Amino acid sequence: MNTPTSLDFLTEALRRLPGVGPKSAQRMAYHLMQHDREGAALLGRALSQAVENIQHCSRCNTFTEHAICETCLNDNRDASLLCVVETPADQLMIEQTLTYKGLYFVLMGRLSPLDGIGPKDIHLEKLVTRATDGVVNEIVLATNFTNEGEATAHYISETLKSRGLKVSRLARGVPVGGELEYVDAGTIARAMLDRRAT
Amino acid sequence: MNTPTSLDFLTEALRRLPGVGPKSAQRMAYHLMQHDREGAALLGRALSQAVENIQHCSRCNTFTEHAICETCLNDNRDASLLCVVETPADQLMIEQTLTYKGLYFVLMGRLSPLDGIGPKDIHLEKLVTRATDGVVNEIVLATNFTNEGEATAHYISETLKSRGLKVSRLARGVPVGGELEYVDAGTIARAMLDRRAT
Repeated sequence: MNTPTSLDFLTEALRRLPGVGPKSAQRMAYHLMQHDREGAALLGRALSQAVENIQHCSRCNTFTEHAICETCLNDNRDASLLCVVETPADQLMIEQTLTYKGLYFVLMGRLSPLDGIGPKDIHLEKLVTRATDGVVNEIVLATNFTNEGEATAHYISETLKSRGLKVSRLARGVPVGGELEYVDAGTIARAMLDRRAT
Repeated sequence: MNTPTSLDFLTEALRRLPGVGPKSAQRMAYHLMQHDREGAALLGRALSQAVENIQHCSRCNTFTEHAICETCLNDNRDASLLCVVETPADQLMIEQTLTYKGLYFVLMGRLSPLDGIGPKDIHLEKLVTRATDGVVNEIVLATNFTNEGEATAHYISETLKSRGLKVSRLARGVPVGGELEYVDAGTIARAMLDRRAT
């Protein structure tokens, strides 16, 4: 028995999605063809549209449909602060806190020598140019607190500080709502070192 | 911060895939835009193509690109045997055993009154017409051995037997390679009842 060519092609194509193996791809293809052809057509259009329209902001590197993104064009933001994040998703999380009014630089990745991801792949030159525009006064490093994120922050920090820039890092410590009993020792050690006067 | 419209649209559309929630949809969208635009374009084309080309076989109800599928058109198959399965995936599994040379009928679902899936949704009338064509001699029920699959098999069996047709069911028993210690009691009970002379 041969499955129809366009169904095979769809199953293969669905495997390009991260985290989707052969079984899930087949399930997705059958589901769409059997129960949600409208959804399949919609997804098809969304993909073509995104491929056509989405580019990187020439200033901060995030996804945008224009040459410069809305955030970078917003005059109400504090241009003296530049927050460095790994992904647009991280940027979105920081925006949702409503505590940050500066601008962003999105690395679109993190340093990971084992995966062959070096300074070039995280657009470090572009970041240095951006950070030395004379307006930026402080760079806030908000990469993840994973090994790779920490290494990336360290590398960027050294690079920018050697150019006389002020660099800071998001505070580490016990999460809000955290119970000491269930927090790992490394986090508590860091919270102890970075303790603040009340 | 507003995410670009076509990225939002893509994230929303990806949620139409079964088992994909908001976080995975976002991860998929970012991944495609950042690392695999070619894959995104390919998937877009595959979806449109599948929506356009895939239809149901007028004889066996499976997915096909033609009015009648290749299996139903194959003269080398035994037209006196009709195997009833829930999905094209199940059909594929049976084909892979290389033990069955008859034809198929694909229900594209199973009876599930709680989900509002009745006899009409599994194309029972079409199955009855197909099974009473005068050539089919035996109907092998190969729905799943879940509660819903068993209920579906029972319902179909009653319907077809009342029309004087011969109906059988895949054997239940201990799986090949199964160790009794780890097989559930229900399966062992069934294997005991259905024991065969050696």
